[in-house]
Amino acid sequence: MTQTASLPIRFALLGAGRMGVEHGLALVSLPEVQVVAVADPIEAAARKVARITRASKTYSDPLDAIHDPEVQAVIIVTPTSTHAALIEAAALAGKAIFCEKPVAADLAETERVMRIVEEQGVPFQIGFQRRYDASFVEAKERITAGEVGEIEQFAATGRDPAPPPLEYLKVSGGIFLDQAIHDLDIARFLVGEVKEVLAVGDAKVDPAIAQIGDADTTTVLLTFENGAQGVVQNSRRAVYGYDVRTEVFGSGGKLVMDATPKTPLLRYGGGQGREGVTSDHYHFFMDRFKDAYRAEIAAFVGALTEGRAPTPGTHDALESLRLALACTRSLKEGRSVRVQDVQVEAAQLEKAQAEGGR
Amino acid sequence: MTQTASLPIRFALLGAGRMGVEHGLALVSLPEVQVVAVADPIEAAARKVARITRASKTYSDPLDAIHDPEVQAVIIVTPTSTHAALIEAAALAGKAIFCEKPVAADLAETERVMRIVEEQGVPFQIGFQRRYDASFVEAKERITAGEVGEIEQFAATGRDPAPPPLEYLKVSGGIFLDQAIHDLDIARFLVGEVKEVLAVGDAKVDPAIAQIGDADTTTVLLTFENGAQGVVQNSRRAVYGYDVRTEVFGSGGKLVMDATPKTPLLRYGGGQGREGVTSDHYHFFMDRFKDAYRAEIAAFVGALTEGRAPTPGTHDALESLRLALACTRSLKEGRSVRVQDVQVEAAQLEKAQAEGGR
Amino acid sequence: MTQTASLPIRFALLGAGRMGVEHGLALVSLPEVQVVAVADPIEAAARKVARITRASKTYSDPLDAIHDPEVQAVIIVTPTSTHAALIEAAALAGKAIFCEKPVAADLAETERVMRIVEEQGVPFQIGFQRRYDASFVEAKERITAGEVGEIEQFAATGRDPAPPPLEYLKVSGGIFLDQAIHDLDIARFLVGEVKEVLAVGDAKVDPAIAQIGDADTTTVLLTFENGAQGVVQNSRRAVYGYDVRTEVFGSGGKLVMDATPKTPLLRYGGGQGREGVTSDHYHFFMDRFKDAYRAEIAAFVGALTEGRAPTPGTHDALESLRLALACTRSLKEGRSVRVQDVQVEAAQLEKAQAEGGR
Amino acid sequence: MTQTASLPIRFALLGAGRMGVEHGLALVSLPEVQVVAVADPIEAAARKVARITRASKTYSDPLDAIHDPEVQAVIIVTPTSTHAALIEAAALAGKAIFCEKPVAADLAETERVMRIVEEQGVPFQIGFQRRYDASFVEAKERITAGEVGEIEQFAATGRDPAPPPLEYLKVSGGIFLDQAIHDLDIARFLVGEVKEVLAVGDAKVDPAIAQIGDADTTTVLLTFENGAQGVVQNSRRAVYGYDVRTEVFGSGGKLVMDATPKTPLLRYGGGQGREGVTSDHYHFFMDRFKDAYRAEIAAFVGALTEGRAPTPGTHDALESLRLALACTRSLKEGRSVRVQDVQVEAAQLEKAQAEGGR
Repeated sequence: MTQTASLPIRFALLGAGRMGVEHGLALVSLPEVQVVAVADPIEAAARKVARITRASKTYSDPLDAIHDPEVQAVIIVTPTSTHAALIEAAALAGKAIFCEKPVAADLAETERVMRIVEEQGVPFQIGFQRRYDASFVEAKERITAGEVGEIEQFAATGRDPAPPPLEYLKVSGGIFLDQAIHDLDIARFLVGEVKEVLAVGDAKVDPAIAQIGDADTTTVLLTFENGAQGVVQNSRRAVYGYDVRTEVFGSGGKLVMDATPKTPLLRYGGGQGREGVTSDHYHFFMDRFKDAYRAEIAAFVGALTEGRAPTPGTHDALESLRLALACTRSLKEGRSVRVQDVQVEAAQLEKAQAEGGR
Repeated sequence: MTQTASLPIRFALLGAGRMGVEHGLALVSLPEVQVVAVADPIEAAARKVARITRASKTYSDPLDAIHDPEVQAVIIVTPTSTHAALIEAAALAGKAIFCEKPVAADLAETERVMRIVEEQGVPFQIGFQRRYDASFVEAKERITAGEVGEIEQFAATGRDPAPPPLEYLKVSGGIFLDQAIHDLDIARFLVGEVKEVLAVGDAKVDPAIAQIGDADTTTVLLTFENGAQGVVQNSRRAVYGYDVRTEVFGSGGKLVMDATPKTPLLRYGGGQGREGVTSDHYHFFMDRFKDAYRAEIAAFVGALTEGRAPTPGTHDALESLRLALACTRSLKEGRSVRVQDVQVEAAQLEKAQAEGGR
Repeated sequence: MTQTASLPIRFALLGAGRMGVEHGLALVSLPEVQVVAVADPIEAAARKVARITRASKTYSDPLDAIHDPEVQAVIIVTPTSTHAALIEAAALAGKAIFCEKPVAADLAETERVMRIVEEQGVPFQIGFQRRYDASFVEAKERITAGEVGEIEQFAATGRDPAPPPLEYLKVSGGIFLDQAIHDLDIARFLVGEVKEVLAVGDAKVDPAIAQIGDADTTTVLLTFENGAQGVVQNSRRAVYGYDVRTEVFGSGGKLVMDATPKTPLLRYGGGQGREGVTSDHYHFFMDRFKDAYRAEIAAFVGALTEGRAPTPGTHDALESLRLALACTRSLKEGRSVRVQDVQVEAAQLEKAQAEGGR
Repeated sequence: MTQTASLPIRFALLGAGRMGVEHGLALVSLPEVQVVAVADPIEAAARKVARITRASKTYSDPLDAIHDPEVQAVIIVTPTSTHAALIEAAALAGKAIFCEKPVAADLAETERVMRIVEEQGVPFQIGFQRRYDASFVEAKERITAGEVGEIEQFAATGRDPAPPPLEYLKVSGGIFLDQAIHDLDIARFLVGEVKEVLAVGDAKVDPAIAQIGDADTTTVLLTFENGAQGVVQNSRRAVYGYDVRTEVFGSGGKLVMDATPKTPLLRYGGGQGREGVTSDHYHFFMDRFKDAYRAEIAAFVGALTEGRAPTPGTHDALESLRLALACTRSLKEGRSVRVQDVQVEAAQLEKAQAEGGR
């Protein structure tokens, strides 16, 4: 899959959950794509997504799909803990790979697997879908065109309507790796690399989150390599919905990416004494970024058909993780952390390599 | 196709132009659907949409697709002048029918064909996609729930970025049938039937439009059966884009359906002396109503799978046409026209029936 | 008062009601002005406004204030029925005149008094305050600069939160003269003179309004002399507040003047199950147009100090009234009315002149 | 001036610059007030404001106005460096005092003077006008009513269109005392006291600002006593105008205070290839907070007439300064600073007391 692919490109979809359905719909809307297999341990789920994607084969084990000789490319939307092993297997099998973030919650494991991907030379794309949202795409273009001038300040807010189950949080890697990483990745995308972070955080939504050593409400101060100043605020709970707002300010002006109402309907008045003007608000991240999820898959397929390297790739997977880990360390240690100080030691990497692929 | 269909429902897509691609993407995203055939006289177009829809057959003549025994339902997106004949053929062949508006520019022909559809008892849906736009759907729900109270005033604006080619306009049936009919249909959908109209209009965009007896800039005063007052303004040209705004006002409040910026990005400043805050605007109706086009096809398929009558059906196809014709007559004659005075005379209908189906 | 005035200009404020307070505050904020007298039959009201304006004299009869030799200019905010007589008296006494609209509900009386003003050559300004609202001022400038190109369509909405008392309505001259006249005047201000109107209307808010021969919910179709098409919708009741929206559309774009929230505060969520985003809305016309009321008085004083003719003056007082009367006639007679057909007959004017000044 | 005042209250306005005019207009609009004197070393300026306020006396030395026996209350809008001495003199003379912020750039001097005010028991109000802006007033009410629940995050942005002259900056006390103090005061007003700050900052707008030891672009991380997290971003230059945005987020929702367009006019299109929708933006803080400046003076007068203590008073003058000084120290020392560690040492206060009043 390193040259321009002959069409259609034959995909396997690994994982038939909510995101599997979403990416399946994206795939089936692309005429350059044929979905040949869907893998999920839950047979009914696999069959459902196979119907959606018109795939003829289902597998319970994603490795079987990876090794299916018909399959040229895989979309990995399995549970996070399986990502690294599946990426490794797919890379070794020479398949093009799209994987939901993160590769792994562990920098050593991420480095190990990203090296394998690079050594094998297979196309790889990580699922930072915001980079394909129309507002961030246009912001990036305008910044590149110089419209904002020198960037001086960055501010991002990311809030979910409600925290996920505690069981999920326990294996999520923490709020910075699981949630804030999207805002941190966008900071890197729009402004550049981050030099230093200082994070504060607390469990304000649910004390049980503190008990598992995590936070649910965080604020991070970022200093970028280019001298820009940044802040990122996250919360696991916003009663009004899904709240993603991003602002880039510079010598030439300001760009603000903030969701419009989900439904373009304004209500004036409306009885029961409520006065004023009301609009609704996104509650679900898949509604807000529906088009971005479609666009990232289309971009991946476009890169394959045209023989380009997909983006964001291994470098961004690694660097956005490093930034999130720096935030995690800063919060734990109560001090500023230089991002480049978050490094895998040789011993760790060796250990990961020794353990990898088992 | 009058009972609940066994799945998947096998579709033929008649017409492989821009709307054919759009509806093809809607169909292929629905697991209940199998597209078996695409028909278009331009073979390359038919093949392209066949690839998108994973259809195995292409036809150059849509009648062949209609008579393909595998086909259970058809989507008609062929040129307007062919709609009536294809609906008739499909109805007589017992196929479920989704047809882009209009059935015909002629009330007699529309009545004739709608009668055949009703006699044959085949499911029929007309493509007034705005009824499936989230803002109009929610407005309808809120009105039905009484949130607006008694409706007292209605106002709609519909403007296209630029007029279509003159060749198209010559056979379009005029601005009310071709463009304003969407606003008029929404007036009926949200407020109820219209009793009387008074239209003024002019060719302000292009004098050639006057020469073919049409207008490009119109304003209509509507009086609804329930006593509400309405206005509809249309233009064939808006330099800033596609402009659809609808307002329903009543004793309980006001609902305003107006497009948010296409891209949720605000620009502040930006050099070259431009100051203030800027956002973009929809330019293309298929962008503004992208989700509505998907939703109307999903609704049609949903009706088929559940054995319900699709909506809007034959009645709305006929009544929204009658309203548009009343506007046309009012503009031509320079006087108020009662909508119910726009009737097909028996002789006309007989003539249409005599000529039909040839 | 026809040359540049020596400063300060000495004013009398005739009428100490709500608008008297408002205009008093406007006067006292202008260093070029000295308020020397306040007149109102209610002594306490006159004294209160005298305190606000630092006026040393109060009168119970406005004519006494007009004839006070210290007084150079008068602000007339007395009950509507007294306007004509006070304008006449002030004009004959050579005083500069600012008068709240209308001069009179009667065209003959208005013509008679406006002629006297013109004959006496005293500065005269009528209180169409919207012409001094920042949004309309800027719209006018942009239109004049050609930014909208040729104006093709106009739409205005004017709704009050609740109808005034029936006693007021009985002497108000009807909804077109009392309420819609502001929208009609803005139509003239932004687009130009109106050739023909067709009005529909009804008493939907209160049947008692029908019984006094008036309407509370109206829609007017306007045809401008320059060929532009217009609509004006009014209602005496909007549960959500004071609703003034104006749109001018042309070959070069569109301008929309619509109130922002009264308070620049957005509420997201907020408990009790209310979701989404909420802002407030103006409920009171004096809040919405507070700055315009100040600006129109400042403009009047500016015209006096600089020896310019104030605007809008006698011509606009007359022509906007004629337009409102055309709407009234159209509604009564159920047909289109040419604005220039609304004329005072010689006999009427003679009668008015014979009766005037008594 | 400690009991309910007999009316009118006789004011002296100390300082006849831009803010003198503004506060003069506020005073003259209040019937409870009589401005008896205006003081300014520039005689023409004093006379101009005297005309505006209808004051009969002017002084070149503000101390003469303070000691005028007719004067009961003073508004201090003189240069910052004179505030402390004038407050002291006015307090010792028993006059009620409204003073623009800051009392002094020095905590010891501020403490010294605030103690004198408290000892003398004269009414005192400091000019944090945002506390009287409608959006902050309503936000405070909603927060107090529990609508936001427990406050968890705070974010404020404050940007000026362009930096003031370097001469001004040299004596301004630095960006935190001069500019950010408004955002910091609002943080205290809406959320509560701040425990700790960490500030970063730089001179990005003008290197000369770095040379005088100041910054023009700053970001502060705040930790509130109640556990809330906050960020404040400031800049001395925003090409698009005056940018003040404040957000309070809590368990019950979010409040956003952000300026609407200055003029409620949306432009669509408009030629020269500019597309989309445009509105304007405030450029001048006195436009954005015009009503707040009026309201704070009205509140001061209201407190005097009703015998209440004005607010914000000596405590807020002191504590918002302490917070700004903590930011200054944090930026200088490159570390977190506990706000309560910013204290005047006894020796400093003694020195200030020894030097004061000379």
